[in-house]
Amino acid sequence: MTRNWQSHTVEAKSVKAWRLNSGDLLRITDIEGGQTGDLFAVAADDLGDGQSNGRSFDYGGTIRLTTGSTIYSRRSRPLLKIIDDKVGVHDFLYAPCSQEMFEIQYGADGPVPNCFENLSTALAEFGVPASTITIAFNYFMNVDVSTAGKLDIRTPVAVEPGKSMTFAAERDLFVAVTSCPAATCNDGKFQPVVVDIGTE
Amino acid sequence: MTRNWQSHTVEAKSVKAWRLNSGDLLRITDIEGGQTGDLFAVAADDLGDGQSNGRSFDYGGTIRLTTGSTIYSRRSRPLLKIIDDKVGVHDFLYAPCSQEMFEIQYGADGPVPNCFENLSTALAEFGVPASTITIAFNYFMNVDVSTAGKLDIRTPVAVEPGKSMTFAAERDLFVAVTSCPAATCNDGKFQPVVVDIGTE
Repeated sequence: MTRNWQSHTVEAKSVKAWRLNSGDLLRITDIEGGQTGDLFAVAADDLGDGQSNGRSFDYGGTIRLTTGSTIYSRRSRPLLKIIDDKVGVHDFLYAPCSQEMFEIQYGADGPVPNCFENLSTALAEFGVPASTITIAFNYFMNVDVSTAGKLDIRTPVAVEPGKSMTFAAERDLFVAVTSCPAATCNDGKFQPVVVDIGTE
Repeated sequence: MTRNWQSHTVEAKSVKAWRLNSGDLLRITDIEGGQTGDLFAVAADDLGDGQSNGRSFDYGGTIRLTTGSTIYSRRSRPLLKIIDDKVGVHDFLYAPCSQEMFEIQYGADGPVPNCFENLSTALAEFGVPASTITIAFNYFMNVDVSTAGKLDIRTPVAVEPGKSMTFAAERDLFVAVTSCPAATCNDGKFQPVVVDIGTE
């Protein structure tokens, strides 16, 4: 089997979305280092059946997803499996940054680019309603959870350029990937990421 | 100000739901000890604006909610504040138990009562669509999170009878409370809980 790979640049503070067929691969590469972003997947046959952090935690028995872990949907169906992870530290606890979050946490007084709006806009092109978009998988985002449960957002582990992670589609789905515009997660820099899609 | 309190029994494996006005109180009491359940709240003015674990984690800076913590909505609005907590250990990571979960984790081969269906049915009476119901607040559920992120469901901390926690409504909302039918969370027993609603 030969794969046909196509390379896409997700510009800083931006988003792209694709339809994947079961078996297709998606690789995210942090080309410059230190960038994070959101990934959100939705089953193609039920646009309300988006990914669920709580289901993925339950079936995986961990809040730390890495190689071998599966992202499950609200209806408990496998969406994406992580088949290779050169970074190893991601977050699946935080909601996507949103206009309201920027106002509350950063004091924004006007519209700012944000992952929730980016995910919603990109997935709307496939008919996915915004109500489906809940907690994104925050790739490369480094969040420490203390034994008491306190959260601390830290500099991404992948500070050197070129680190990647690869997902395999477990069914036909739509998926959006952002490059996150929240300074705290990215150590103050905003960079593009590259998404390579490998189809059979 | 005198409050008018009304007492309601949520039978084992069952659910009840109410409309609360801003300022109303809701107290859950584990009358026999060792029982857990799900709580899910939705803003009355936007039936898509349900509670969000990720937003609550972000604004509270912790995955461990207790006295003083607020449950936020998807749109970053405060829904419920915990004003008294005699137990202190709850979970906000796991998705509500569902028919699919019972099939996958317990090998169920027929329909079983489950919190997702119970929450959906009870909140549907107020017009809340099932798509709004994501991760419930799993009151009294004791989940250990290791430093590596591994999850371990343990016996509830509140094993003696009569322990309670009290929430204050931060806005007009609908809220459903279940008594959970998943054996693992409740140490194998299924008991009713009492919900007292205090209105001004």
